[in-house]
Amino acid sequence: MVSPDQNSSSQSPARHLRYELITLGDELLLGLTANGHLTFIGSQLGRRGVALQRNVTITDEAPAIAKQFSESWANADVIITTGGLGPTCDDRTREVIAEVLGQKLVFDVAAEKAIADRFARLGRKMTENNLKQAYRPERAELLPNANGTAPGLWVEQSGKVLCMLPGPPNELQPMFVEQVLPRLAKLGLLLDREAYVQLRSAGIGESALETKLQPIFDRYGDALNIAFCAHQGQVDCRLSSPTDQLSLPQLDEIAQECGRLLGEDLMCYGHDSLAKVAGDLLRAGEKTLAVAETATGGMLASCFTDIAGASKFFAGGVVCYDNEAKMQLLDVPECLLKQHGAVSPENAVAMATGAAERMCADYALAVTGYCGPCGGPAENPIGGVYIGLYSPCGVWSKKLSIPGPRSTVKQRAVNAALDWLRRELVRTHRGATVQPQRSAQA
Amino acid sequence: MVSPDQNSSSQSPARHLRYELITLGDELLLGLTANGHLTFIGSQLGRRGVALQRNVTITDEAPAIAKQFSESWANADVIITTGGLGPTCDDRTREVIAEVLGQKLVFDVAAEKAIADRFARLGRKMTENNLKQAYRPERAELLPNANGTAPGLWVEQSGKVLCMLPGPPNELQPMFVEQVLPRLAKLGLLLDREAYVQLRSAGIGESALETKLQPIFDRYGDALNIAFCAHQGQVDCRLSSPTDQLSLPQLDEIAQECGRLLGEDLMCYGHDSLAKVAGDLLRAGEKTLAVAETATGGMLASCFTDIAGASKFFAGGVVCYDNEAKMQLLDVPECLLKQHGAVSPENAVAMATGAAERMCADYALAVTGYCGPCGGPAENPIGGVYIGLYSPCGVWSKKLSIPGPRSTVKQRAVNAALDWLRRELVRTHRGATVQPQRSAQA
Repeated sequence: MVSPDQNSSSQSPARHLRYELITLGDELLLGLTANGHLTFIGSQLGRRGVALQRNVTITDEAPAIAKQFSESWANADVIITTGGLGPTCDDRTREVIAEVLGQKLVFDVAAEKAIADRFARLGRKMTENNLKQAYRPERAELLPNANGTAPGLWVEQSGKVLCMLPGPPNELQPMFVEQVLPRLAKLGLLLDREAYVQLRSAGIGESALETKLQPIFDRYGDALNIAFCAHQGQVDCRLSSPTDQLSLPQLDEIAQECGRLLGEDLMCYGHDSLAKVAGDLLRAGEKTLAVAETATGGMLASCFTDIAGASKFFAGGVVCYDNEAKMQLLDVPECLLKQHGAVSPENAVAMATGAAERMCADYALAVTGYCGPCGGPAENPIGGVYIGLYSPCGVWSKKLSIPGPRSTVKQRAVNAALDWLRRELVRTHRGATVQPQRSAQA
Repeated sequence: MVSPDQNSSSQSPARHLRYELITLGDELLLGLTANGHLTFIGSQLGRRGVALQRNVTITDEAPAIAKQFSESWANADVIITTGGLGPTCDDRTREVIAEVLGQKLVFDVAAEKAIADRFARLGRKMTENNLKQAYRPERAELLPNANGTAPGLWVEQSGKVLCMLPGPPNELQPMFVEQVLPRLAKLGLLLDREAYVQLRSAGIGESALETKLQPIFDRYGDALNIAFCAHQGQVDCRLSSPTDQLSLPQLDEIAQECGRLLGEDLMCYGHDSLAKVAGDLLRAGEKTLAVAETATGGMLASCFTDIAGASKFFAGGVVCYDNEAKMQLLDVPECLLKQHGAVSPENAVAMATGAAERMCADYALAVTGYCGPCGGPAENPIGGVYIGLYSPCGVWSKKLSIPGPRSTVKQRAVNAALDWLRRELVRTHRGATVQPQRSAQA
């Protein structure tokens, strides 16, 4: 294993370590539940310089667990398992894996107390089967669970690490961030900070972005590694130094230089979403936002309502499928809808204006269009979308033509609207106190 | 392998076959994209009597593909792969797997023509690298791709089946349903219809449901297998006959009897969502619906806007975070908000009424509450939610107390509101033309 002191370079000591994730659960294989653990753990590891090598989803049955765990344990350096630690007879992870590891299960009095305390705190009676969760492999450590009864388990054996986590996301996620990542970092198995410096751009294509930044990159040659990742109208650019020639402060400085060159095309440093960046700008300027949408069906509103504390800047949203709703809720004139139709620049402007005025908001976004599967008239086929922006300086519309299936059209229309608002907010506040925020790279 | 004629029983011939799914893509392991292929393919197979045994997600690299495919091919009967069939140098599935199978790649003129035709139809120029997609293992068949350039590939070898599918969901999903399922059914590797008869209930707990139906189940003893699956306020009950003693028409008859006993607690036969069932009832009665919500942030509206053709019955929705929006968009009186607060039965009634009146809808649902992470006052802690229902017969509110994390509170509040509407619609239309629809069990 790698010693902790090699940990200060900008590259992960874990480049050559094999990480595997085993997700347990019939409900995953039956398609009843999406495998959010892969998305969460994969991205968390990636940010610390670890590329997850494999994720295996298996059933809850003991032979399947034993077979898969034996194979993975023989090949991997770090194994993370999720699920199967609960109180019911379906929960077999602890027992089966202890046996493969050749460890006895022992009753842990501290774990018993934590479980009993939790039931007492919630004023509920603890059934006998809950005590199953107080057993641990004899050489395992407990990872306390602040949000549930089953503690996580941490095992170091034969130069390898095994980490068993409970299945519910609200239990697993804080346990992973607060306990597992620091333990892995302490052992030098991943970085104790982000593995790369990320710039996130919006509204500029991958090749245009590369062309714009190439003169900066050229100065550093092989010392600088650049990775682009494009997703629905955004392009992320990740800077790292494969040979450790560039320190983290140097990478930061290069990112800042890129950011200055990109100007408005820079959305943020780090991992924030478009809605988060726009929301932070609104909050900083003490402004509010309203939204109005048709075919995107609430997707634009939910970008904001998913943000904790959004009520500080988000006044509300209207999903108006039929013209009556547009007229009644947003004061769109009937004659405008008759003359120009609901998918028109005129209606995008009217919806944005109506949303801002009705909800007493400083800014408003509107999206109206044909997202499929049914298209509009020839001049407005599927993917023909109008977005509207209302601001204290005026109100405008823009036409988009987005190729692809319904889900792509919806997501890109929403992102285009969010980016337009973001640019308007950056422009308005430029020179004032607000600039795109630097995210902590802790 | 099982011969097709054994296929007429209610049980899958595939009970003892091992199905594995290999999902390829660095973007999955990095957590950039959710693994929707597992959810889709797992549920499609489950409905045809096949329990997917394992899903393995690996990187795009050739050695990883070769190693995993070799291992899976040695153990499984049917292997499905997704991704890596496209035109770029990252796409290596075809080449690597052909080598493991010991098959040469051959250029397929029909595939070339399909790709060239697609480019011509879209008026785009075909780059040279697209021709890579016209190669196939010499003994593979092509699965035409109606929505993209890369055809799927179908291989039968050594008594096993391999099916390679393209990664984009809008290409994979129709290909799987229209081509892969019928081919597997024809070989007797899964059923050519649903493997079980499903009743879906709402608003009744799993144990209460079981108690209610047990007298019916008791009459059939071991001939009838019953599986319950509870999810966020709904409980599915799946009836099958493990020993094939009961035919499908007999299972249908038992399900109908259960349905009659359940009355309003029966949501539907089959797989429809609460919103789909409520929407069908609205459509059948030529009625319209409006919704108004606070903390659920658009989730209620999106249940309806996700349904194709929802504009026939869905007037629109309002997400009103601040009181100004409630007053301006829904005519909630300021004095009501001041006296009773936004999270109150009075406001749930006022929001539902305002939504119905403003959007000229026959019915309206309202949801207002504390979903977390911040709670309200002591009398309304997190999970304290009021729902309101407006109908042609009157307007009412109901209080819910939902334990659990934010996502659970939101989903259960939305489901409770949808189920209340559904029950009201069933009651109103009872004796008339509308009854919960029987889904096709094709």
